[in-house]
Amino acid sequence: MDIDRERLREDIEANAAFGAVDAEDGRGRTLLTGSDADRRARERFVDRLGDAGLDVRVDAVGNIAGRWAPPECDPGAAPVAFGSHLDSVPRGGIFDGPLGTYAALEGVRAMQDAGVTPDRPVEVVSFTEEEGARFGIGTLGSSVAGGHRDAADALGLVDDEDVTLRERLDAIGFCGDDAITPGAWDAWVELHIEQGTRLTEAGAGVGVVEAITGITNCEVEIAGEADHAGSTPMYERTDALTAGAEFVLDVERAAEEVATDRESAVATVGQGTIEPNARNIVPGAVRYQLDLRDTDSETMDRLVDRCRSSLARLERTNGVDTGLDRYRTNPPTPMAERCLAAADNAAATRGTDAIRLHSAAVHDTANLAAATDVGLLFAPSVDGASHSPREWTDWDDCAAAAGVLAETVRALAE
Amino acid sequence: MDIDRERLREDIEANAAFGAVDAEDGRGRTLLTGSDADRRARERFVDRLGDAGLDVRVDAVGNIAGRWAPPECDPGAAPVAFGSHLDSVPRGGIFDGPLGTYAALEGVRAMQDAGVTPDRPVEVVSFTEEEGARFGIGTLGSSVAGGHRDAADALGLVDDEDVTLRERLDAIGFCGDDAITPGAWDAWVELHIEQGTRLTEAGAGVGVVEAITGITNCEVEIAGEADHAGSTPMYERTDALTAGAEFVLDVERAAEEVATDRESAVATVGQGTIEPNARNIVPGAVRYQLDLRDTDSETMDRLVDRCRSSLARLERTNGVDTGLDRYRTNPPTPMAERCLAAADNAAATRGTDAIRLHSAAVHDTANLAAATDVGLLFAPSVDGASHSPREWTDWDDCAAAAGVLAETVRALAE
Repeated sequence: MDIDRERLREDIEANAAFGAVDAEDGRGRTLLTGSDADRRARERFVDRLGDAGLDVRVDAVGNIAGRWAPPECDPGAAPVAFGSHLDSVPRGGIFDGPLGTYAALEGVRAMQDAGVTPDRPVEVVSFTEEEGARFGIGTLGSSVAGGHRDAADALGLVDDEDVTLRERLDAIGFCGDDAITPGAWDAWVELHIEQGTRLTEAGAGVGVVEAITGITNCEVEIAGEADHAGSTPMYERTDALTAGAEFVLDVERAAEEVATDRESAVATVGQGTIEPNARNIVPGAVRYQLDLRDTDSETMDRLVDRCRSSLARLERTNGVDTGLDRYRTNPPTPMAERCLAAADNAAATRGTDAIRLHSAAVHDTANLAAATDVGLLFAPSVDGASHSPREWTDWDDCAAAAGVLAETVRALAE
Repeated sequence: MDIDRERLREDIEANAAFGAVDAEDGRGRTLLTGSDADRRARERFVDRLGDAGLDVRVDAVGNIAGRWAPPECDPGAAPVAFGSHLDSVPRGGIFDGPLGTYAALEGVRAMQDAGVTPDRPVEVVSFTEEEGARFGIGTLGSSVAGGHRDAADALGLVDDEDVTLRERLDAIGFCGDDAITPGAWDAWVELHIEQGTRLTEAGAGVGVVEAITGITNCEVEIAGEADHAGSTPMYERTDALTAGAEFVLDVERAAEEVATDRESAVATVGQGTIEPNARNIVPGAVRYQLDLRDTDSETMDRLVDRCRSSLARLERTNGVDTGLDRYRTNPPTPMAERCLAAADNAAATRGTDAIRLHSAAVHDTANLAAATDVGLLFAPSVDGASHSPREWTDWDDCAAAAGVLAETVRALAE
């Protein structure tokens, strides 16, 4: 089963032309849902699905699926699906999304060329608005397909110009009425660029993702007492910022300690404000937004506990009042054992060096795990650059990863 | 020499009516330079100076001086001056400024009532825009009188409504053409509320200020590397905020260590920003504004050195780039020995418990120290509240401090 590297490259490069941007440091594109560039990218994708003999469906939120059911397969069997997305962030790269979408199509073509006849139908899928760049919610299309969000709610979302998703999709002719339901699939596999450097550092050709990280967000407030920066001696202060500084370091230390045996654990204080934020006033309050991630729910809980312990200590030692609101928890998503095994075997069969790793970013695959068995593969990405024209994956690496993807799906569809 | 407590109270309460604000927690006022409330406060002050037989002068920036030259004095001798200011911050208290201004007038009246005949003329002074609440620059009037700022420059300053100081003063009839020149004074003494609690804690009736604190301001930048909060492992981060947190704690520690033998040393990180300040991005840079104060220049230099050491350490240990810009240094202002001695003696003569202390805030007196011998007295302030309607000094305490002020000036004018 041979991957046609040039055919795959041509697809990705042709897709990259839609919304292409001037970029000195690479090849970038801006492909927002419902834009004219999106229409052309989708129309080309549908044409190419048709060229390969696939039957195309479009669901209410514009998710696209092409079905290959060769005469030899059982047309009533639950299909194996694979794919990714075609949209991008503003000035994004040309591989983030399209690699997985067109590698899936190339996988079908490779099976066809090699005379492989799967027992189950195979579907090639592209989800709408994975980046959330226009409607603000990432993995939107797969969250509807996966049953986590109502289609009508999604279609009612408005963009910055107060135009709904329904209007955007209608305008480009991609508000469909077919059903694309991952619950009816036997399995799903996605290929995506890594957005990190573990593969290139390991010299591996493909990453077999064991789990997609969970994310929990907390808002923390530390209240001290605003005071005159001149006339308040050091020993009379209840300085919210110095207490906040201890908290920031406690959060870092907690993640570093957890990460000694789990590289996947990360904790970030990325956003913060000081009140009143005046040069000559001892800070009266600080507020922080926390982003805590791990592929293991208990570890995430432990990180939150460490944050609470830090705040309790600061109440005792610094006299501040504190509060922690854990307002969002997306649990980690483990990949299905049979998808992991199929991917490992596929890499071995193809002679592609593989490593197991975790996904530190969320992908459409996370929305499908409750509906079907899921797998996720990573292709190497130079310097880990993504969401930037600097994003790059060598064509040989694209082809090798696409080969492992195709072989994985072939095995699952047996 | 008796202070008439009720006469002083009446003056301060009548002045408090100008710009009085509704306040549940005390008696507040808003008196901005050039407002109608300012006009009325100034007109009443001038009237009361006239009632006491003082000759009133108004200079270019609206500073007001009333001169008492009894027949027994040498009219050519350099006068002793005392006073403070009449303006307030928005929703300020009724004592901050007016206590010192009207206590000076009451001092003249007390000398007159007691038949005290000074050898030198005595002047009662109110400086314009001490708070900087309208034109943004604190101790503005005294900075012009003290020769630190050109009158024309000051008059050209604009407020939030783009109106110049000159227009504001013209509108209320207080842009004068007389000279008020501290360089021609033999000495200057100011009485002000403490804006702190050292007097009430010591149970003292008056504070004899040894020095006004110096202030140095620095801008610090710490640059790390903005990164994805999910896909950047802890060990690969150059987090500007965690480095910044260490810096904030180093600054606090430096001031605490210095302050073990110098309570006057304080260091505050009051203002800060994070870039890009997004929940899911490892901070790429932080910027802080520092306020470092002490009554001793070398100690201020030592605090700045400690900040530089901290940044140098962070460059080594955290891999960040740092910069420190010491953009402002107002040196400390020691009070004149003869004013200190006169104040100590005055307190002893009046039977008022006095302590020596420093001023952690800047006052008009700081601008006059280069021109003449200066002294500064503090009156007790309940809970140290100031710039708030909660500000309060008992009338007995006002009278006691005014008595020490009058006795100090009497002695200096001998």
